[in-house]
Amino acid sequence: MSVKKHVYMFSETDASMRNLVGGKGANLGQMTQLKLPIPQGFTLSTEACTFFYENDKKLSDEIILQVEEALVKLQTITGKEFGNPINPLLVSVRSGARVSMPGMMDTILNLGLNEVVVEGLAQTTKNPRFAYDSYRRFVQMYSDVVMGLSKSYFEEVIDEMKKEKGILLDTEFTTDDFKIMIKKFKSFYQEELGEKFPEDPKKQLFGAINAVFNSWQTPRANYYRKFNNIPNEWGTAVNVQSMVYGNMGNTSGTGVAFTRNPATGEKKIYGEYLINAQGEDVVSGVRTPAHIETLKEIMPKVYDEFIKATEILENHFKDMQDIEFTIENNKLYLLQTRNGKRTAQAALKIAVDLYNEKMITREEALMLVQPEQLESLLHPQFNPVLLKKAKPIGKGLPASPGAANGHIAFDVEEAVKLYKEGKKVVLVRMETSPEDIEGMHISEGFLTARGGMTSHAAVVARGMGKCCVSGCHELQINYKQRYFELDGKKFNEGDYISLDGSTGNIYGDKIDTVAASISGDFKTFMQWCDEVKTLGVRTNADTPVDAKQARDFGAQGIGLCRTEHMFFDSTRIKAMREMIVADNTAEREKALAKLLPMQRQDFEEIYEAMGNFPVTIRYLDPPLHEFLPSKAEDIKEIAAELGMTIKKLKSKIDSLHEFNPMMGHRGCRLAVSFPELAKMQTRAVMEAYCTVKKKNPKYSPVPEIMIPLIGDIKEFKYVKNIVKETADLVLEENKMDVNYKIGTMIEIPRAALLADEIAKEADFFSFGTNDLTQMTYGFSRDDAGAFLNAYYEKKIYESDPFARLDQRGVGVLVEMATKLGKEANSKLHVGVCGEHGGDPSSIEFFFKTGLDYVSCSPFRVPIARLAAAQAVIQANKK
Amino acid sequence: MSVKKHVYMFSETDASMRNLVGGKGANLGQMTQLKLPIPQGFTLSTEACTFFYENDKKLSDEIILQVEEALVKLQTITGKEFGNPINPLLVSVRSGARVSMPGMMDTILNLGLNEVVVEGLAQTTKNPRFAYDSYRRFVQMYSDVVMGLSKSYFEEVIDEMKKEKGILLDTEFTTDDFKIMIKKFKSFYQEELGEKFPEDPKKQLFGAINAVFNSWQTPRANYYRKFNNIPNEWGTAVNVQSMVYGNMGNTSGTGVAFTRNPATGEKKIYGEYLINAQGEDVVSGVRTPAHIETLKEIMPKVYDEFIKATEILENHFKDMQDIEFTIENNKLYLLQTRNGKRTAQAALKIAVDLYNEKMITREEALMLVQPEQLESLLHPQFNPVLLKKAKPIGKGLPASPGAANGHIAFDVEEAVKLYKEGKKVVLVRMETSPEDIEGMHISEGFLTARGGMTSHAAVVARGMGKCCVSGCHELQINYKQRYFELDGKKFNEGDYISLDGSTGNIYGDKIDTVAASISGDFKTFMQWCDEVKTLGVRTNADTPVDAKQARDFGAQGIGLCRTEHMFFDSTRIKAMREMIVADNTAEREKALAKLLPMQRQDFEEIYEAMGNFPVTIRYLDPPLHEFLPSKAEDIKEIAAELGMTIKKLKSKIDSLHEFNPMMGHRGCRLAVSFPELAKMQTRAVMEAYCTVKKKNPKYSPVPEIMIPLIGDIKEFKYVKNIVKETADLVLEENKMDVNYKIGTMIEIPRAALLADEIAKEADFFSFGTNDLTQMTYGFSRDDAGAFLNAYYEKKIYESDPFARLDQRGVGVLVEMATKLGKEANSKLHVGVCGEHGGDPSSIEFFFKTGLDYVSCSPFRVPIARLAAAQAVIQANKK
Repeated sequence: MSVKKHVYMFSETDASMRNLVGGKGANLGQMTQLKLPIPQGFTLSTEACTFFYENDKKLSDEIILQVEEALVKLQTITGKEFGNPINPLLVSVRSGARVSMPGMMDTILNLGLNEVVVEGLAQTTKNPRFAYDSYRRFVQMYSDVVMGLSKSYFEEVIDEMKKEKGILLDTEFTTDDFKIMIKKFKSFYQEELGEKFPEDPKKQLFGAINAVFNSWQTPRANYYRKFNNIPNEWGTAVNVQSMVYGNMGNTSGTGVAFTRNPATGEKKIYGEYLINAQGEDVVSGVRTPAHIETLKEIMPKVYDEFIKATEILENHFKDMQDIEFTIENNKLYLLQTRNGKRTAQAALKIAVDLYNEKMITREEALMLVQPEQLESLLHPQFNPVLLKKAKPIGKGLPASPGAANGHIAFDVEEAVKLYKEGKKVVLVRMETSPEDIEGMHISEGFLTARGGMTSHAAVVARGMGKCCVSGCHELQINYKQRYFELDGKKFNEGDYISLDGSTGNIYGDKIDTVAASISGDFKTFMQWCDEVKTLGVRTNADTPVDAKQARDFGAQGIGLCRTEHMFFDSTRIKAMREMIVADNTAEREKALAKLLPMQRQDFEEIYEAMGNFPVTIRYLDPPLHEFLPSKAEDIKEIAAELGMTIKKLKSKIDSLHEFNPMMGHRGCRLAVSFPELAKMQTRAVMEAYCTVKKKNPKYSPVPEIMIPLIGDIKEFKYVKNIVKETADLVLEENKMDVNYKIGTMIEIPRAALLADEIAKEADFFSFGTNDLTQMTYGFSRDDAGAFLNAYYEKKIYESDPFARLDQRGVGVLVEMATKLGKEANSKLHVGVCGEHGGDPSSIEFFFKTGLDYVSCSPFRVPIARLAAAQAVIQANKK
Repeated sequence: MSVKKHVYMFSETDASMRNLVGGKGANLGQMTQLKLPIPQGFTLSTEACTFFYENDKKLSDEIILQVEEALVKLQTITGKEFGNPINPLLVSVRSGARVSMPGMMDTILNLGLNEVVVEGLAQTTKNPRFAYDSYRRFVQMYSDVVMGLSKSYFEEVIDEMKKEKGILLDTEFTTDDFKIMIKKFKSFYQEELGEKFPEDPKKQLFGAINAVFNSWQTPRANYYRKFNNIPNEWGTAVNVQSMVYGNMGNTSGTGVAFTRNPATGEKKIYGEYLINAQGEDVVSGVRTPAHIETLKEIMPKVYDEFIKATEILENHFKDMQDIEFTIENNKLYLLQTRNGKRTAQAALKIAVDLYNEKMITREEALMLVQPEQLESLLHPQFNPVLLKKAKPIGKGLPASPGAANGHIAFDVEEAVKLYKEGKKVVLVRMETSPEDIEGMHISEGFLTARGGMTSHAAVVARGMGKCCVSGCHELQINYKQRYFELDGKKFNEGDYISLDGSTGNIYGDKIDTVAASISGDFKTFMQWCDEVKTLGVRTNADTPVDAKQARDFGAQGIGLCRTEHMFFDSTRIKAMREMIVADNTAEREKALAKLLPMQRQDFEEIYEAMGNFPVTIRYLDPPLHEFLPSKAEDIKEIAAELGMTIKKLKSKIDSLHEFNPMMGHRGCRLAVSFPELAKMQTRAVMEAYCTVKKKNPKYSPVPEIMIPLIGDIKEFKYVKNIVKETADLVLEENKMDVNYKIGTMIEIPRAALLADEIAKEADFFSFGTNDLTQMTYGFSRDDAGAFLNAYYEKKIYESDPFARLDQRGVGVLVEMATKLGKEANSKLHVGVCGEHGGDPSSIEFFFKTGLDYVSCSPFRVPIARLAAAQAVIQANKK
């Protein structure tokens, strides 16, 4: 067997060897290939790590030999020598797995120093303080990181010495102080470990390498791997790199720079540096760094070299880079480069610019923006100047992004009153319910004391693109006396508050907002998305306003128009209630006749807003008791309004009471009990179509009638027959024809299990993944808040299954239903209209599962378009 | 191609030809083979029916020819001639598919009569009234059944003639009246159909045959077939059989007899007959029939021949027969035989007797009793003499069988008070809830105004083996003034009522009950079940009393012991409430420490009752708010009891409020939030084991700890770890060892989908099919009552999915989880503990799916044992 290569010089590695030499190693290799000035070094491969574990956690002689050979080469490259006090080679030792992973060993710096070398360094650099500070840091790091001694002892020693000397900062220590400190550290080391601190640089080196390999299997690292599905066998690499110092005097320095502006995306170097300093000094903020451009004047050659390097790196990595550099005695070294973090606006501009600069393809450009980032471009934000001065009075969950200010209203009536006075309103409630919809429409934002990220308030807010802070448990509302308490202060109805739905912060006064600016690149970028993506993106919209907004955002139709929201409107709820309290079919039909023209009007406006796009209309879904009052005073008022006795209304309400409304008399079950309801809705859907089409023949919307909560083919057929008869009758009456569709939501597990049967009768499926998730997990979104926190804390769940589709569980039903459905009916159109339709990772899953479209709230449409495009690009990569 | 045989004489058919000649045809064939005196005839095969439809709904010449040939043979056999007035052959024409099917053509009698033949018949029988009555009946039947004329016309004519003549009964018509009637019928026929009533007997015959074939595809028949999965292609046969008459004078007669006593099973002929009568006279009750034994004296030869025939039939069909016979002029004819309906007691005795008589095998004996029948043997019944005189005051759903009487109590306190006074109690409530458990335990039966067959009251009642009438909507309860109204009467608390849980009847006074007698055959029979069945049968039992009862009924362990029922007990609920209102873990542990000895005591008694059988203990399942009061007065009282302010208790109750408790903070979610709860329960389970084992080493129960509501493997592991640590600690403390098991319920769809993952960590699965059905269908059992009736009426659902497992939907999850689970863990033990565990058709499904056991309420254990045995026998047949 030939000897296996386990150790690679940086010059021997490249991007293709990432699995073998880890992310950091491959990166250093690439920079070496690019002939950039990096401190040279070598990498022990991930296979060496595996071998280490196979060899009883010992480095084999073979590996030791290879390391020593590499060390010799490194000495040749650097012209320095390990352990030589005149010209010492000092190195850092770092772990470097394929993917960045917390829980692994960090960094050891200044390795190679000992009693002799430190003194040599002091003399050659003429900087004894620097030399001894470096040495004490090394002793400290080695003791803690490699040998596992407690950090706190070292800190205690330092603190004690400061006290003795009456100083406050590390910088006030003298060389002699460091010498004393090193002695103390070393004697502690000996006491604890029963051996002297290693003076032999090679012993130090192999100790550090061992420590890195051992850190691959700490409990924390194992735990992290398990949760992130990282195989144990991958192992970690070890990088040994020669040290450079930016604190060697005024010809040295250190800094950080971005190749483009990370805030705006502007193509211009952006960064800062400090002369005679180490990396941590730039970060700590003790000294104020200078702008990178001033380096041009101080060290013009270094600056030019640096600028050239940034261009090479950007060209190589094809993305804006975030670069750390050090200047040691007028010589530039690049320590690290990575793709830089950036704002949404910058991300868009950089992506489009890089494409225009022909540096990347359109597909690569699309991968440079995180879909979620787009959200911040779509909502108003607080004026940053004002925000800086503001102090929050409390914090809830950041349930729906954007910023809002307005006058406090505790209920819909007050909200309407303030609104009519021309005032902006923030609705503050314990929790919201469908009865509050009207008040929510006219409010700028909502604040609730109860409920999580997927509570009613949060879901509605995201749907409407309004700001919402939910679940602020400290919020004490006194509805009776019309005030709330927070942060020890009292806020009355009508007082100003401001909400930040992106952070969850609540402010006790008015902070002005600014509309976010959307650059022209945004449009270009979104067009690229549409050219690449294959998945349709529709919107969930119940009103013409929402529909229009969504079209502006690029929606290709409505995937979910909830008809019940229309009934909560104060002008309509009376007729709705008459329908509900009706004692027989005739009375019910009378009330429905009043609702018909209103519902028809809604649909007309929505069709007009959607032009030639399909509009999926879901029939009445919530249980009827949601439309009836629950408070005594309301019951009294409404009984009078409906012309019935309080007793009778009460008994009607009682008879509609449900233990588990979520699993009650709702969805298609209403249409089965009261077919006249489905008839009225069908009439409204089809008459609206006829009216719009007659008025303006250029509009050709496709009505798609969606029956909710189906669990059985016979149930679907029963309702479908009613719908079909009525629809055909209306078309006949109007002498018109349209290829309307009748489909169903798949939101009951049983429907997914029997999807083949249902598909034979349905034109389309739309996954209602909200309800499907609730039923599959057996918990209600409204109630899960009480226990889900414990599940996150105890690492039982990693993410909210209502926000990100549970692909292993609920996803199995989605796959099953899609497969069964499409096999049984090749024309079946399949989409999703639950909240997950706007979540990028879920969208990728829906794409892979073979769905035809996703539907999400208007403000998530751009996100979905990008996620859908990225899904295609990802799939093509494989 | 050779000519296909489509028409068979009765003598040419036998049992093996059932598919070809239908059930009736095969039966007549067998009786012919047995040389029993049946009126001869022939059968047109089901293939002829298919051919009829293929031939454009016409009889082919070939078939017509074969019918004519058969007719000639029949004339030879009977010595009578079609259309011959002197010696006419008259026939009946009946449909006869493979399985009995409503919606098909019924019967035409007396076919072959016409103007000439009727007069001949009048003369030869010297009974003109008989002849003309027969003829008018034929005309009427033919017009209606064959030609589709409206029945009502004929009835109107008859009614008018009665009025004219001033008579009331058909029997008062004279021969001349019938002649007039026939004329009227025939002229109506001609008016309506534009042709004369057919005088040619052959034309009548082919008309009738055509009508039978056509009736195979009436909408009603199609509908029935679709619902019962009967293929269209099966077709129906037609039986043409010569007529015999029991009303030809005093040497004729007709009767019905059972080969054994259908009430007791006694081996002795049991039946009755009438001289000079037709079948319908026996049924109508106008004349009182004589006991079959008296025939011995009147017609000894006929009687002997009949007795011999009954023996032959019983021997042939290997079951007690229900036989119809006619005597025409001293000649015996058997018209029909079928397996006789019988009481449960008779069924058992007959099955055991037939085996002892070596007529049938043990397996055949087991198939002779319907599992459901056994239920009536296990509950007390009303004294039948008293019952006959009683008039119900109302009716609800027969929710749990048996009979009960007692004093009305409207709540638990009153029930306890009456019980302590030594009185029997019937609990009357709008609906029951877990808080009522204590009152339910001491009551004889429950009556509720709301709720269906699977409401809380019904489920608990069946579990306890108590009588329950639920969902009596007419029941108006006034809790405040302590009375209810029903049937316009007022019943006060303390008044007597009686309930029949088998019929749903409610009686306004006391009707004494009698314990049902169980004959010794019962034991023998149940032993056979156990010898044959492979599925284990356990019981759902929460108390030592239930456990003991179930063991008496043959349970092989406890499959579900619900620990929460123990906490509702009035002596314990205080500690439970202290635990719930606790502000922190320490307080909670303090309260739990009070519950520990009580819970331990429960388990000790249950282990003792179960001897060496396994006991599956399910950890606390319901949401905690179920243990807290909801009424203001109770809150006040309990706040005082717990030593906290009303406000604080109220706010605690509010914080525990759930929108959908069924999908809320319950099951294992409680243990995840409050691990100390699982610790206490584990300590109780294991300490009880140690105590019992030490006290009496002959007991070796196997504690099986069951974690409810699991939906994820990490969730299961989290709770399992807590349980395991505590259990091992207790065993160590006691220096004992036992192979206890930790498993989970599969009741959340997600658990079924991910069963392979869970199985790797679980010792057993127990399907909670109640919750699994709720989640899979997306409706709550408590609320479904509001809409399920519409589903039954509209034929969307055929059976209650909570009573009979939905094999197509929920069953898919059960199969999937069993398969995934057993593949992942070959030692996995799989059972079911939902209500379906006691339903015979579901049990057959569980057996086929490969489950190891079913668990059901004590009173269903014998039923489950028989159903499990029958499942094996059925499977072996295939």
